[in-house]
Amino acid sequence: MDSLAPAIIGTKAEALTQRYGADALPPAGPWNETIAVMLDHRSVRGYKPDPVPPGTLETLIAAAQSAATSSNMQWWSAIAVTDPAKKKVLAEIAGGQKHIEQCPLYICWVADMSRNQRISDATKTEFETMPWLETFMVACIDAALAAQNAVVAAESIGLRTVYIGAMRNDPVRVAELLGLPPQSFVVFGLCVGYAADGKAEGEVKPRLPQSIVLHKERYDAARETAQRATYDAEMSKFSARHELQAATWTQRVLNRLGPLKSMNGRETIRASLKKLGFEIR
Amino acid sequence: MDSLAPAIIGTKAEALTQRYGADALPPAGPWNETIAVMLDHRSVRGYKPDPVPPGTLETLIAAAQSAATSSNMQWWSAIAVTDPAKKKVLAEIAGGQKHIEQCPLYICWVADMSRNQRISDATKTEFETMPWLETFMVACIDAALAAQNAVVAAESIGLRTVYIGAMRNDPVRVAELLGLPPQSFVVFGLCVGYAADGKAEGEVKPRLPQSIVLHKERYDAARETAQRATYDAEMSKFSARHELQAATWTQRVLNRLGPLKSMNGRETIRASLKKLGFEIR
Repeated sequence: MDSLAPAIIGTKAEALTQRYGADALPPAGPWNETIAVMLDHRSVRGYKPDPVPPGTLETLIAAAQSAATSSNMQWWSAIAVTDPAKKKVLAEIAGGQKHIEQCPLYICWVADMSRNQRISDATKTEFETMPWLETFMVACIDAALAAQNAVVAAESIGLRTVYIGAMRNDPVRVAELLGLPPQSFVVFGLCVGYAADGKAEGEVKPRLPQSIVLHKERYDAARETAQRATYDAEMSKFSARHELQAATWTQRVLNRLGPLKSMNGRETIRASLKKLGFEIR
Repeated sequence: MDSLAPAIIGTKAEALTQRYGADALPPAGPWNETIAVMLDHRSVRGYKPDPVPPGTLETLIAAAQSAATSSNMQWWSAIAVTDPAKKKVLAEIAGGQKHIEQCPLYICWVADMSRNQRISDATKTEFETMPWLETFMVACIDAALAAQNAVVAAESIGLRTVYIGAMRNDPVRVAELLGLPPQSFVVFGLCVGYAADGKAEGEVKPRLPQSIVLHKERYDAARETAQRATYDAEMSKFSARHELQAATWTQRVLNRLGPLKSMNGRETIRASLKKLGFEIR
């Protein structure tokens, strides 16, 4: 089998230390290259202009389509964007994220209820299940499961990625630009390419201790405050290395979730989705 | 590195033929074991009682936490359920899905806004960004990205899985059973274990041709009807092998999306989520 995984992947102990810090190592068990690839994930925001290898897009989509999909309804589509003019507009919509212009392949992941709607129209059958929050949510989840498989596939062959949630800053303009039919919208974009040299490659970002995120049998937040302090300490070290202003995770949460303005207008997404033909009862 | 990937994985050509049928093979490029694992996915609904190897849960959670998360807010939690009595109730909520009782490890994936809410409460800071559809959607997507990494990790060590969307048949009862705090709910469950012998292992399910799902630069459904007929033919063969009543995909879409009753009550999820403390403006 043609293995294109990155040559340099650390050991299990190194990978877990990068992900959790030395003070919060989980007792992880089985390990292999696939798992090592996932643990090594970091979001990359600077790309070389080099194109991805031939057939890469189709490989990523095959991986994406292999993810589970609710009742096999396959509620998603992908739009591959390589046109520099189009990527420039998308970067602008995303608040000037230059990596959208830089990356050789930009994939827009579409929660696509239009395909099933076309079957309803063609067969003159009312689809009573369409206009509900449940169905909308399933479409978004289907798109997310698919995209995540594509990310793992990309990273397994040495490419890097970053999700772009800021497509939701203006879903209507994105839909117009990509010619989307009613009842479809771009949930997020994904930059794909080779990390630029130097700092662009970034570093694995520490996550909350497993003791905060993983519960056994019942939800238990009894020790959460103390464990969050451990994580804040770990994130402070990370922030210092990367010259980030908000040192702790708690401070980042306060900055990101406190003021409405940090949503960049996304609090209006319900109205935008209505314009795009979604009913979300 | 300790490789525990399944010993028998087919070639690239075999994998693509299983996923798309011989009449709709995509021109896929790079290939390796990680990608082969993903292509080999099938949902398994029959499990051996054998436990998963020690440390497996923690490995799956490490993979899950390594997935991207919007602004590093980490809007999810996982609840590992192994208690037979609890699994029995969950199986009942899911309409009698016996595999929930059979599998040695059942993971409930929680869209968890309660953790960030606790930071709001502790710091007496109003989080203006909380009560919006956008934020709710991000929590669900974060949970989905995480869960999908766990699925890939599980399958890479020879385990099998199936997502259980039917946790949403009664989100309030599930939340009570697992002791969830307000502003958290189980988006879906996940059975993890070794496939039972015989038919339980199942077969890779064909998906829509890439030409339907993947668009270049702009959405284009011009040839969709013809391509859907190709898929219907492929799915008819699959259905015949598995003695499924609805032969074609189109027929399955009509059955699943036409009548409201096929939602099993999930059209009321907005009201359930309100009871669980979610505002989704």
